[in-house]
Amino acid sequence: MTISDIQSTDDLVATIAQLFAARDLTALTNALTPVSPDDLVPVFERLSRKQRAVIYRLLAKDRAAELFELLDPPLQSDLLHGLQDAEVSQLFADLDHDDRLWLLDEVPAALATRLLRGLPEHERVLTSALLGYPQGSIGRRMSLEYVSTRESFTVAETMERVRARLADAETVYTIPVLDDSRHVVGIVSLRELLSAADDTPISQLMSAARMASAQDDAEFAARRCADLALLAMPIVDREHRLVGMLTIDDAIRILEHEESEDAARQGGTEPLRRPYLSTPVGALVRSRVIWLLVLAVGATLTVQVLSVFETTIAEVTVLALFVPLLIGTGGNTGNQAATTVTRALALGDVKSRDFARVLTRELRTGGMLGLLLGTLGFTIAAIAYSPQIGLVIGLTLLCVCTLAAAVGGCMPLIARAVKVDPAVFSNPFISTFVDASGLIIYFLIARAILGL
Amino acid sequence: MTISDIQSTDDLVATIAQLFAARDLTALTNALTPVSPDDLVPVFERLSRKQRAVIYRLLAKDRAAELFELLDPPLQSDLLHGLQDAEVSQLFADLDHDDRLWLLDEVPAALATRLLRGLPEHERVLTSALLGYPQGSIGRRMSLEYVSTRESFTVAETMERVRARLADAETVYTIPVLDDSRHVVGIVSLRELLSAADDTPISQLMSAARMASAQDDAEFAARRCADLALLAMPIVDREHRLVGMLTIDDAIRILEHEESEDAARQGGTEPLRRPYLSTPVGALVRSRVIWLLVLAVGATLTVQVLSVFETTIAEVTVLALFVPLLIGTGGNTGNQAATTVTRALALGDVKSRDFARVLTRELRTGGMLGLLLGTLGFTIAAIAYSPQIGLVIGLTLLCVCTLAAAVGGCMPLIARAVKVDPAVFSNPFISTFVDASGLIIYFLIARAILGL
Repeated sequence: MTISDIQSTDDLVATIAQLFAARDLTALTNALTPVSPDDLVPVFERLSRKQRAVIYRLLAKDRAAELFELLDPPLQSDLLHGLQDAEVSQLFADLDHDDRLWLLDEVPAALATRLLRGLPEHERVLTSALLGYPQGSIGRRMSLEYVSTRESFTVAETMERVRARLADAETVYTIPVLDDSRHVVGIVSLRELLSAADDTPISQLMSAARMASAQDDAEFAARRCADLALLAMPIVDREHRLVGMLTIDDAIRILEHEESEDAARQGGTEPLRRPYLSTPVGALVRSRVIWLLVLAVGATLTVQVLSVFETTIAEVTVLALFVPLLIGTGGNTGNQAATTVTRALALGDVKSRDFARVLTRELRTGGMLGLLLGTLGFTIAAIAYSPQIGLVIGLTLLCVCTLAAAVGGCMPLIARAVKVDPAVFSNPFISTFVDASGLIIYFLIARAILGL
Repeated sequence: MTISDIQSTDDLVATIAQLFAARDLTALTNALTPVSPDDLVPVFERLSRKQRAVIYRLLAKDRAAELFELLDPPLQSDLLHGLQDAEVSQLFADLDHDDRLWLLDEVPAALATRLLRGLPEHERVLTSALLGYPQGSIGRRMSLEYVSTRESFTVAETMERVRARLADAETVYTIPVLDDSRHVVGIVSLRELLSAADDTPISQLMSAARMASAQDDAEFAARRCADLALLAMPIVDREHRLVGMLTIDDAIRILEHEESEDAARQGGTEPLRRPYLSTPVGALVRSRVIWLLVLAVGATLTVQVLSVFETTIAEVTVLALFVPLLIGTGGNTGNQAATTVTRALALGDVKSRDFARVLTRELRTGGMLGLLLGTLGFTIAAIAYSPQIGLVIGLTLLCVCTLAAAVGGCMPLIARAVKVDPAVFSNPFISTFVDASGLIIYFLIARAILGL
């Protein structure tokens, strides 16, 4: 079944491309009619922006609206450009509050203002309330459509509230329990409600609530929700009063977004923010060129370091042969440490305050790796060239590995402490730093040992 | 509240370390008593293996069992070593089937066999059934404790079944609908059941089921469950008969595991499989040394390439100065492409069969980046050294960037096609390949232009 799903996506994309080339809009409409909006999403992600705009117009109105809700916000934003104002307002009004916030983050500021102004009064108030939370906070990602109960209520009273909200609440399976001032005092699940007698007081049934503050970082709150395997988590204000709920599907979406960002930054690119095949080549270039330039400028440092030692190289050309090997190994060691610590930070396993522990561990790890590689490097270079060259290579590897692991391990922590994405300071940046300092170490050791 | 959570974890770890040093087990027990098992998990992850073993023994039996269930399988496995056979059997028997499978993947084969043998007959049959699915398949990760209904049943009949399983089913919110031969024909949510009249036939209420096959790759099925925002997804056999349910919390756990693996491999290390601070330094070294050695051996290729061109370097020493810059830029460009495509593969945005599209896009992207950097490199090197050197640098950057992006983008697809983890072939591996080929290109261009 999953196989046939994949094939049908590919087939559909191929069919659409053909009918598109033939400009056969009737056949195109017929080909799309039997496909569910769910299945149209992967098809849409593989089409060009122009194809998407045309095909979207061919869908029946309700199906188009359903598909719109399922798309990634950047693709939603693309579509809006081709539509009329009234349609745009309608689509925006039909979204959930939290989905609206994702989309608002994507569109230009002028359009955002216009979209907000087009909302019905009641909806605008709610959406504006979410916009009041800081960028990147969980307050912007929470749902306002929830069911709550009171500790003084019974199971029957609570079930009545649940039944009244079955149609519109985002979640009814996790129900926060409030006191008279709306403070969250506990949590009760629909499952527990169903197992209990009708007259059981909620205060007897509820358990301790795990929650997050609306000001908390969205990734932190989402990770907490996922780690605790909660279907939904209450979001509270500074006084612990309920302001919204974070549902697990929104938590997953936040984490996926953050993980794509981490993966991209770790590889030295800006996140694409949309599926790869629907990203124009120009956008791919833009996502990479800044970092590539920054790194290339950083790398001119290595040219300068080397030109300082140009006479040394001219005297002993063989030293130049090992440059890529040495700085490559340093870069790799640094990347390894940075990757490990960045991931540990993302998972919450390590905090900024663990600096000393991380530094100690990475110095030891780097030292052991350096000892191992250094011994190996010494042996091979001593045999292939001379014992002195071997000593230079071995000692350099020992120093560079230790330095690289320490720098690579600490950089993400420093980044987090100064509120920069740890992944930004990660691999390529560390390589560049380790390259330059590794070269200095290399030539200083070489000069000392070879007596240059 | 979240802040105080973090502080209490840190404080607790500090207190435990102190009391541990003072060997004051009574005070240690008192310090642990008010802490919930949930909160003990992060504390446990920051302790040494020995501390964990001692502290675990200090907990009351039921609290210890509760904590055990919450720990990562590698930490569970650590704990088992210090315990007696009877305790071990009991802990293992108390786990859910799917948690047992995670733990079995961690422990040595001999212990796994012993653990299975120690299970009560009924439990052993179920756990063995899961073990029958291939390693890495979703069949091993699904839950067997679910509620199902029949299309011929009414809402009232289904609610009765749900009520009967409230205590033990892993999920009751998503209920698969079966025909007389246990084929999944639809899905109904508890929410829909509650909204409907008692005598509504399920066949009227149910909607199309999104499912996965038990043989499917676990990551694929988990991604599907998360992408579709399902709280639980039916898992079926080849004939579409229900065999289990994948719940969203298990899907998250699978994805987190896979993402940690991808992040690690992208940085050239083996995944740690346990929280960073609870990983011994020796294990950190082991997770890195293999890749470091592989890459260092690969890098000896650059030494050989350079020694071929040693006379060229001796003649024009200035060429040596640009080596780190050129191979660094090539490596970065390759990493960028590899990172982007690896992530797109993980998200299912790109498949192996998209090879031609990816290659075209990366050739264009790499070419444009190369043109940009090449022009810049030409200008700077022409001014700083000579127009000829500028031409060498510029042309090399153009060629290397195009090659690196193409290789970096295609490698993950090739890896996936031959069933290797795409992240393995990712960044450091590509750097090494691009380093060697980039150097050859560099010196060939230099020889041609400088007439050496």
